[in-house]
Amino acid sequence: MQAVVVSREDRTPRVVERPRPTPAPGEALVRTLRVGVDGTDHEVIAGAHGDFPPGADELVLGHEAVGVVEDPNDTDFERGDVVVPTVRRLPPGQDGNEYFERGEPDMAPGGEYVERGIAGADGFMAEYFTSPAEHLVPVPKELAEWGFLVEPVSISEKAFELAESARSSFDWTPESALVLGNGSLGLLTVAMLDLDDRFERLYCLGRRDRPDPTIDAIEELGGTYVDSRETPVPEVPEVHEPMDFVYEATGYSKHAFETVEALAPNGVGALLGVPEDRTFEVDGGRLHRELVLENKALVGSVNSRRSHFEAAVETLAALPEWFLSNLTTGVYGLDDLSAAFADDDTTIKTAVEFHEHEKR
Amino acid sequence: MQAVVVSREDRTPRVVERPRPTPAPGEALVRTLRVGVDGTDHEVIAGAHGDFPPGADELVLGHEAVGVVEDPNDTDFERGDVVVPTVRRLPPGQDGNEYFERGEPDMAPGGEYVERGIAGADGFMAEYFTSPAEHLVPVPKELAEWGFLVEPVSISEKAFELAESARSSFDWTPESALVLGNGSLGLLTVAMLDLDDRFERLYCLGRRDRPDPTIDAIEELGGTYVDSRETPVPEVPEVHEPMDFVYEATGYSKHAFETVEALAPNGVGALLGVPEDRTFEVDGGRLHRELVLENKALVGSVNSRRSHFEAAVETLAALPEWFLSNLTTGVYGLDDLSAAFADDDTTIKTAVEFHEHEKR
Repeated sequence: MQAVVVSREDRTPRVVERPRPTPAPGEALVRTLRVGVDGTDHEVIAGAHGDFPPGADELVLGHEAVGVVEDPNDTDFERGDVVVPTVRRLPPGQDGNEYFERGEPDMAPGGEYVERGIAGADGFMAEYFTSPAEHLVPVPKELAEWGFLVEPVSISEKAFELAESARSSFDWTPESALVLGNGSLGLLTVAMLDLDDRFERLYCLGRRDRPDPTIDAIEELGGTYVDSRETPVPEVPEVHEPMDFVYEATGYSKHAFETVEALAPNGVGALLGVPEDRTFEVDGGRLHRELVLENKALVGSVNSRRSHFEAAVETLAALPEWFLSNLTTGVYGLDDLSAAFADDDTTIKTAVEFHEHEKR
Repeated sequence: MQAVVVSREDRTPRVVERPRPTPAPGEALVRTLRVGVDGTDHEVIAGAHGDFPPGADELVLGHEAVGVVEDPNDTDFERGDVVVPTVRRLPPGQDGNEYFERGEPDMAPGGEYVERGIAGADGFMAEYFTSPAEHLVPVPKELAEWGFLVEPVSISEKAFELAESARSSFDWTPESALVLGNGSLGLLTVAMLDLDDRFERLYCLGRRDRPDPTIDAIEELGGTYVDSRETPVPEVPEVHEPMDFVYEATGYSKHAFETVEALAPNGVGALLGVPEDRTFEVDGGRLHRELVLENKALVGSVNSRRSHFEAAVETLAALPEWFLSNLTTGVYGLDDLSAAFADDDTTIKTAVEFHEHEKR
């Protein structure tokens, strides 16, 4: 079967021939439909994040997959079931650990997990993949086309849950939210927040000139585009309003600190970017004081667990079709990998298609 | 009656004569027993925090009070009830706001509250004070002697609640805790954490030489003293262990950022200090990345509400008597104010005594 890999010597994604995997006991064989491409893939490709499987010189890319069960093997799935795989797995040779046993692999610390397509384990960008049944989440057939968006939506489901829980010891009544970053995750998050009746006013920050498809999407969702070149994050409260919720999806580390300044009293910032080391000056006294005197909170969030995938399936079903279509700027076959991995201003979200879903 | 004030011209606490207050409808008159002195008082005295009541040139100090109901007036209290007042009140002239209506004055933003003895309202350092009944928390008579500690304990009750809630979306099983700061609030917090069976290992950071009464108290509680001059906060994980919970009670702003480095994966830091502006360099990329990839959280916490005072009363009853005695290095009358407001290495916690409690 064909698979998309990067190798130690050649970091350009390319197609190689791999044997079709055989499901082990408890695993199903899945025929891959689509696999999304996101910022993490670009970091993996650039060698800035992730790692090869132990002893391997190649990594099969892809962690945002949707597929159809081809061989249920000894699992409870049926042939034809549409499924999305979660990303984290036990490290090779490890029988189990408390995080996986609790169903919370997203909370496992380094060394207690690998991530398929990212760190230490082959991903899903291949014609077929196998997965233990407990790491496969059922998706309604009608959503098969958009199933590659379940994983990124699950990332925000987890971040929302962490942020909300951090405000659960008092009566938190948020109305305003700011998403930092107008990439695909940022836009998906704006659309998700738009489904939440509490958020009356949504803002999304980027640094693009009009006309631009991401600005169009923000505005069609009823949100306000904030150009960070005109309105830096610390000025957002004065120019717009203080934000009850800030979602950072840029990986630009200054934004993590500026989030404190953008927050309203009792607000919470969810941090999701994964920046490199970067030293800079902050008015740490003021940030510290604001966090304390205004009861603000910051929560870091990585990965997601099965319950977040299940919530994401429901969320995806509620997102407007026009938005998903506009978000997805291209779905490409293996003969057009360079378009699938393009990262320019006309690209929002892309996916690689391995098989078409036969609607029954 | 006698009251302890600072004035705009003279920031040294001194005794002045004030009329005994008359309780308004819904208020009780309280005969003051003791009023504690803490770091916030020292900041108020120095003019670094807080404000005078509108139009006033003097501020009656004191926000950590315990007293006995002298005149219940039209409230449900009885003469002789031991009570502790909460600190926040509605601003003068304001009929109400959503935070006070919800019983969450601690979550009110600036402009929506005053703080007795700190900002915009006279405190409790007087022979008598009045308070609306809903801001008076009953205390068992046996605890009257230590009732001035209910307020500081309530501060940590709130911080614990915020921190725990920030970890409530997963199975958080903390074992290690680090308290930054060996002042009276830091020591009280170590003693409170010692009551929590989950925390098997407690650490408290300071910068004092042995022999020192705070180090003795930490060690008698079974905790480990960490000298920040030998082991800076970022080195704590290597020298001791990564911390599931960090409680910052220093007001030293670098500690707010170093807290991220001291935390174990999935850990949470509660920030309570109130520093001045202070600009310094941070490796913001690394801190941001650690927050995200290790699911860490920071929560700022200020003040406390009635439910935290009620929890504090129960906690105080459970704290060992030897600890409360060692913590309280002095209880002074109005003729010895300079001792009550001393801030040297032999002082941990002091209180001003207005009336002795007659045990019945």
